[in-house]
Amino acid sequence: MTNNEQTIKDSIFGFGDKNEAYAQYFIGQSYLNSLVSDPAINVSVSNVSFEPSCRNNWHIHHDGFQLLLVTGGEGWYQEAGHAARKLHPGDVVVTHDGVKHWHGATKNSWFAHIAITAGTPEWLEPVSDTQYDALED
Amino acid sequence: MTNNEQTIKDSIFGFGDKNEAYAQYFIGQSYLNSLVSDPAINVSVSNVSFEPSCRNNWHIHHDGFQLLLVTGGEGWYQEAGHAARKLHPGDVVVTHDGVKHWHGATKNSWFAHIAITAGTPEWLEPVSDTQYDALED
Repeated sequence: MTNNEQTIKDSIFGFGDKNEAYAQYFIGQSYLNSLVSDPAINVSVSNVSFEPSCRNNWHIHHDGFQLLLVTGGEGWYQEAGHAARKLHPGDVVVTHDGVKHWHGATKNSWFAHIAITAGTPEWLEPVSDTQYDALED
Repeated sequence: MTNNEQTIKDSIFGFGDKNEAYAQYFIGQSYLNSLVSDPAINVSVSNVSFEPSCRNNWHIHHDGFQLLLVTGGEGWYQEAGHAARKLHPGDVVVTHDGVKHWHGATKNSWFAHIAITAGTPEWLEPVSDTQYDALED
């Protein structure tokens, strides 16, 4: 299997369930396995998996940040005004407070990352097919 | 190899270098690969690996917390006044503000976890051989 589907579904950090709560902010199907959600801890931690071509909308974390630890597959991370960065297992992404960005799978591969998130998200416009299709796998 | 040495050394999150900075607070050899250390982010993220029998001293995170995501091998987590918990890949540990605890490898296995840490650590006494040897692998 070349698209990493089984690797993603067998992750030690869990594949979880269909990400219904955030589906309105994604193109394509994502899956969410919550690892830490605790009112006494000011970050949440989840393992998020994306089917091929799935990506979230542009968004901003206000009064917070987001850290991504790539656990499997191949994906993209892009900040507004910058080129997209191709992601592989073990890669780490730091998104600072207020920075507009998106992340998701490549066209041909499943993708998963642990997301460590603080603050309040603001969800913006989708990553259009034109933008996404211009990325080279 | 039954002691998970190669798995730990091949981690996608990196084996890193000998953990010299914290050696005084550990029994045995640990290794540290820093993943996020950023003055604008109020947590640090590292992959920490422990040789068999290696463990850190009892310690407390003040005005903060620690989250452990087990990435490989077999280890222990214990809070003061509670039984030790055996840890396996994919396990998640939440240590709240002010809670005295320690973590480390089992006698016969290497061990690694990602540590997401906030606040100021206070390092206390070592986990004695008597305490540690009483744990069943």
